[in-house]
Amino acid sequence: MEFPVSLQDIQTAHQRIVPYVHRTPILTSESVNEIAGCELYFKCENFQKVGAFKARGGVNAVLSLPEEQRKKGVVTHSSGNHAQAIAMAAKMAGIPAYIVMPKTAPEVKRKAVAGYGAQITLCEPTQQSREENAVRIQDETGATFISPYNDYSVITGQASCAKELMEDQPGLDAIIAPVGGGGLMAGTLLSVHYMDNKIDVYAGEPEGAKDTYLSMQTGEITKVDHPNSIADGLLASMGEKNFGIIKPLIKDVFLVTDQEIIEAMRLIWERMKIIIEPSCAVPMAALLKNKEVFAGRKVGMILTGGNVDLAKLPF
Amino acid sequence: MEFPVSLQDIQTAHQRIVPYVHRTPILTSESVNEIAGCELYFKCENFQKVGAFKARGGVNAVLSLPEEQRKKGVVTHSSGNHAQAIAMAAKMAGIPAYIVMPKTAPEVKRKAVAGYGAQITLCEPTQQSREENAVRIQDETGATFISPYNDYSVITGQASCAKELMEDQPGLDAIIAPVGGGGLMAGTLLSVHYMDNKIDVYAGEPEGAKDTYLSMQTGEITKVDHPNSIADGLLASMGEKNFGIIKPLIKDVFLVTDQEIIEAMRLIWERMKIIIEPSCAVPMAALLKNKEVFAGRKVGMILTGGNVDLAKLPF
Repeated sequence: MEFPVSLQDIQTAHQRIVPYVHRTPILTSESVNEIAGCELYFKCENFQKVGAFKARGGVNAVLSLPEEQRKKGVVTHSSGNHAQAIAMAAKMAGIPAYIVMPKTAPEVKRKAVAGYGAQITLCEPTQQSREENAVRIQDETGATFISPYNDYSVITGQASCAKELMEDQPGLDAIIAPVGGGGLMAGTLLSVHYMDNKIDVYAGEPEGAKDTYLSMQTGEITKVDHPNSIADGLLASMGEKNFGIIKPLIKDVFLVTDQEIIEAMRLIWERMKIIIEPSCAVPMAALLKNKEVFAGRKVGMILTGGNVDLAKLPF
Repeated sequence: MEFPVSLQDIQTAHQRIVPYVHRTPILTSESVNEIAGCELYFKCENFQKVGAFKARGGVNAVLSLPEEQRKKGVVTHSSGNHAQAIAMAAKMAGIPAYIVMPKTAPEVKRKAVAGYGAQITLCEPTQQSREENAVRIQDETGATFISPYNDYSVITGQASCAKELMEDQPGLDAIIAPVGGGGLMAGTLLSVHYMDNKIDVYAGEPEGAKDTYLSMQTGEITKVDHPNSIADGLLASMGEKNFGIIKPLIKDVFLVTDQEIIEAMRLIWERMKIIIEPSCAVPMAALLKNKEVFAGRKVGMILTGGNVDLAKLPF
């Protein structure tokens, strides 16, 4: 099967972003391995720039734009890690960033985006208002819209994460990561497909936002009305470009409840002494719920981010 | 000046414990550097076995005992990280560990110690009751008492931490660590003295337990009545053996309030996405309070531990 992103594309993207993002460490924990019944290798994107893997896709997308187009700036709508990633990438490139954020977004996130010098437009907390504002800004400024996930240059940037994981920890039997809009998952699947296709790739997904699970069952993108989960980074619906890659390549999608997510998050905080956000605990919860699938195997797990409000912890 | 621990002793101890403890990573953070106004290199003992540097001294002390003596077991009194370190070391050595713990110790800590197969004796939460019980157990079993800090084999084990820091990050101008009983501080000073004595070594200490600060002023061990601080790992009074090393070698001791400790702890959690306990945030608080001392310098900071009760966070 032919994919719109080649191995060469992934390698080029990785070289492009290397000066701007961290090659994050891979951690292990004997006590977590004992609990999980397998050998876990944690790729720590919670230590990434802006605190999440989104830095990879954001930087690649901004730097991939042709110079003439790039200098007019970039625009996106996001209340979370993608907003910070685009703001940071634009600052690095010396171009304007226009970020549409719902006015309900936490002040700490607005401050972080503003700290990179981005121009923030506050909108109503609806998909419609976000999109309308983004389109208006595109029209007014000529800036290029960068989707958080439904974009091949974003997917190609996220692919560098699994590439590093396989390079730094050869011999994995499986990789598991969370799935929301599908940017990280599509990138992970492409890197595995080209570099070591004996590795099984699994997704963890919240019960309350199980559009990937449903889409895999029906064979076409199937949205969930009013997705809801403590894993607030995974509420987005699968993108079309993402699904075109995920559908033929993914091994399985495991669903987990919010309670299971909170318990997995706490386990990682307590045993590994690292801070991960709820969305990031989803694959750990999925693995603990499906131990028989992973028993005795070498499993790479992508810890996607560490941006959590310490004043609002679920435990 | 001659010290009772030689460079050779430190090297031998390090080789002895290498198979049983982690060579912990050194992390850096550009955003923390910007705030601190210097180049910080964090030696992450919060990722150490048992979640704290105490594993180093505990393992060295247990494995340094002559075989005949060792097989009768080891005893200590501690409610914290030292208890776990001795219990773990004894398990590794296949010998009995007798741990006297105040009956007020959190159940999670009792469980952790019991998990290593140690025999726990609960006592009244007073120094007298702790010591009486430890002496009684020594008499009954012939086990060897291992002090948490006032012991040259413990100090020599802790010295391996700064040794690794200097080996893995050459060219430091200063090292800062917390001080309680003085085991880590004495070990750090000895390693620096023998390996690179151009490095200035500083201590951070809580205002509410400032016996090291007072002892440095008076020139002799000066205790504080009823020491009290959120940094509960630093309430112990300076040991005599420790002070004999600390007094001639330390550059300065900085005092910090509990509020400053909490702010520094939160800064590290938020910016670095790692979990450190309050005692471990003391040097960061001290550095932020004395920026002019460290301005523009390369500073190694020992992050001592990550054992914190997530249900009782100060923020």
